Amino acid sequence: MNPPLSGKRILLTQADEFMGPAVREILSEQGAEVVADRASLIAPDAPARVIAAAGHIDVLVANLAWPAPSSSAVEASESEWRDTFAALVDPLPRLVRAVLPAMIARRAGKIVVIGSSSALRGMKRTSTYSAARGAQLAYVQAVGAEVAPHNVQVNAIAQNFVENLTYYGPEVQANPKFQERLKREVPLGRLVSAREDAAFIAYLCSAAADCFVGQVFPVCGGWVTR
Amino acid sequence: MNPPLSGKRILLTQADEFMGPAVREILSEQGAEVVADRASLIAPDAPARVIAAAGHIDVLVANLAWPAPSSSAVEASESEWRDTFAALVDPLPRLVRAVLPAMIARRAGKIVVIGSSSALRGMKRTSTYSAARGAQLAYVQAVGAEVAPHNVQVNAIAQNFVENLTYYGPEVQANPKFQERLKREVPLGRLVSAREDAAFIAYLCSAAADCFVGQVFPVCGGWVTR
Amino acid sequence: MNPPLSGKRILLTQADEFMGPAVREILSEQGAEVVADRASLIAPDAPARVIAAAGHIDVLVANLAWPAPSSSAVEASESEWRDTFAALVDPLPRLVRAVLPAMIARRAGKIVVIGSSSALRGMKRTSTYSAARGAQLAYVQAVGAEVAPHNVQVNAIAQNFVENLTYYGPEVQANPKFQERLKREVPLGRLVSAREDAAFIAYLCSAAADCFVGQVFPVCGGWVTR
Amino acid sequence: MNPPLSGKRILLTQADEFMGPAVREILSEQGAEVVADRASLIAPDAPARVIAAAGHIDVLVANLAWPAPSSSAVEASESEWRDTFAALVDPLPRLVRAVLPAMIARRAGKIVVIGSSSALRGMKRTSTYSAARGAQLAYVQAVGAEVAPHNVQVNAIAQNFVENLTYYGPEVQANPKFQERLKREVPLGRLVSAREDAAFIAYLCSAAADCFVGQVFPVCGGWVTR
Repeated sequence: MNPPLSGKRILLTQADEFMGPAVREILSEQGAEVVADRASLIAPDAPARVIAAAGHIDVLVANLAWPAPSSSAVEASESEWRDTFAALVDPLPRLVRAVLPAMIARRAGKIVVIGSSSALRGMKRTSTYSAARGAQLAYVQAVGAEVAPHNVQVNAIAQNFVENLTYYGPEVQANPKFQERLKREVPLGRLVSAREDAAFIAYLCSAAADCFVGQVFPVCGGWVTR
Repeated sequence: MNPPLSGKRILLTQADEFMGPAVREILSEQGAEVVADRASLIAPDAPARVIAAAGHIDVLVANLAWPAPSSSAVEASESEWRDTFAALVDPLPRLVRAVLPAMIARRAGKIVVIGSSSALRGMKRTSTYSAARGAQLAYVQAVGAEVAPHNVQVNAIAQNFVENLTYYGPEVQANPKFQERLKREVPLGRLVSAREDAAFIAYLCSAAADCFVGQVFPVCGGWVTR
Repeated sequence: MNPPLSGKRILLTQADEFMGPAVREILSEQGAEVVADRASLIAPDAPARVIAAAGHIDVLVANLAWPAPSSSAVEASESEWRDTFAALVDPLPRLVRAVLPAMIARRAGKIVVIGSSSALRGMKRTSTYSAARGAQLAYVQAVGAEVAPHNVQVNAIAQNFVENLTYYGPEVQANPKFQERLKREVPLGRLVSAREDAAFIAYLCSAAADCFVGQVFPVCGGWVTR
Repeated sequence: MNPPLSGKRILLTQADEFMGPAVREILSEQGAEVVADRASLIAPDAPARVIAAAGHIDVLVANLAWPAPSSSAVEASESEWRDTFAALVDPLPRLVRAVLPAMIARRAGKIVVIGSSSALRGMKRTSTYSAARGAQLAYVQAVGAEVAPHNVQVNAIAQNFVENLTYYGPEVQANPKFQERLKREVPLGRLVSAREDAAFIAYLCSAAADCFVGQVFPVCGGWVTR
């Protein structure tokens, strides 16, 4: 068997952040040529520049990273809201606008958004982050339905309780209270590993995922199940 | 029986737009004192001013109105995105920040957001609007979970195919093609009437809805069913 | 205002069990004539007999009651499965077959099924019960879509953590561990009261609910939110 | 890379029916040793016999096949209901009871159920089939949550509009009206191929899916998206 992603050129954004390192590793293992971009995407013209610099790409993995604020709804400030949306929400349509025309012209292409299941189930003190992630997922559903007739697939995972340095560093994981919380709140009883998460993302990048249209796949150890 | 909303003072935003007129009518019929605010909520300080001007309110009905753009994802412009979020998304946390503290202090209060099921199911040429509505619904879920212990209920409806002048004026409704489309796409086979929609909103404003926490209720004639 | 259910003749099955007493009380308060049937519905011909005996009915509230077994999937016996389905699942299509023709002929009628959100989110040691409740909800969605063009509305609530003597008797509720569990697992932090639950069922029985088609409404204190 | 399923012994039930042939082919291509059982599972003792005959198995793919009846809710007969549940529902807990103890003892194993998204969205004239499929999916969610702490993963796909001879034979596919219906109702605009469907099932059989707990994955060309 050929590796499932051989011959695919995949652009991974914010490649050093959030799920970037694990995704890059798995995509490469599966034969993809990974364009690992490290630029911030916050400046309004950054997404178009990143897409232009990448050249031909078969798949865009939109890895938008921003530390989830932990404020109550009353405390959440204007700047918290603005900064979170500037990092997680606003770059997404800019990336899509820049990358879609070539995919539509070729009648081939995929976009995979690394989203969050905080948009699927309410959590305390995450209203800003949940709202931003909710915008992403609804956007994916709409664009996915729209571009499917052009043979372009746009899908998302909705992750939570996935191992990554941004949210669950070694000291957090070493904390027995955190382990108890995982056992109590997450049916899986452990964090999803970064490689498990990345493997699923890789699946959505492959030809095997040609049949998925604007779909949101929870990857959160059973915290939400559909 | 007392009317279900007697003794309730309810702030309705953008009362002349979108679902405003029907909601106002039903809330009044059910005994509420309706503070029908007509201000635009787009200026960053507008929501706080509206809340302050309203005085004591038991329930906030967040009726945020903006005509849904009908662009493809490639055509959707920066300004379309910015204006839609400025009208539908950004005012919501501002309203909530302004209104919640008094509700939490009193251990009583409700917020009902008039959202859209375009955030629950993908539609073509609605990516901007869906994204904005998705932010609203995820925000409601998170804040709802957070403030429930304070006996404040935050919930949303997710409507579509509901009669209102913004989207379905008389000439649209008179068009046989539109009626055929309704029969084909909407299990109900007709538009949900504005009064049906408003009656459900009124229910979520009443004491009977004390048990709902961060919940999203589709009201769309079966177009989505949960 | 007339009470919302005045003039409505509503058949409530197993009226002494599960949500029966609370539903009966609220429906009567809201002006309905309640036909409170007490028969077991397990015998294959029982549902048709109950419907025939009831005469003209405008709304059927299918209150199917059976104590949820608490076995692991490995322990769950053939008889547990058979008995649970015989009580919760098999009577539903028999009731519907018996009651629908008159509703379709009149182009008016409603069926409200009291279901369970155990079918929407996995719980341990409830596989048999969840499966039975899952059959109910999927059935409601399908029949709801089918009969909507005849102006008959079929909908369900999906309840959990609702006060009722079958599951949460006084000694359970008095147990501090149970109260802690509620605070930990149910965003509402308390049981939904039987009257809150019944009020929502009453709403779905009323003309205000003409717009809902095969819809499943969670009523579970935010345990699931859509 | 080793093929993803090398070293895995996978039992596939009703291997000549429904998704059996495609699943068998893909599982074999990916290195699994496939125990392709052809027995009917309707007799109450059949599932246990099939499991016993299979010997050691790492993964059970529960492919339960039955032609979807196409009756209205009023027409659906007792025997239609009983036969559909006897084929699709009752065998599932019997298979699970027989196969789980060894998996739990080894702290390793997977069950993948080939379910239907007719349980997730209402369709006309499919009430019996939808109900049966709804029982399956809710069962998977519950058992999945229950056995996750034993490192056994139970998940399901919920398919619709997937190429297979049972539902979409060559003459159906050749019918222009059917092709128009696909374009109108299914965002993908075509049937999901049997191999695409089977590839996703294979993924859920692999070690990469260790992180999924009682999850339901729609595979239906965007007809439902979560």
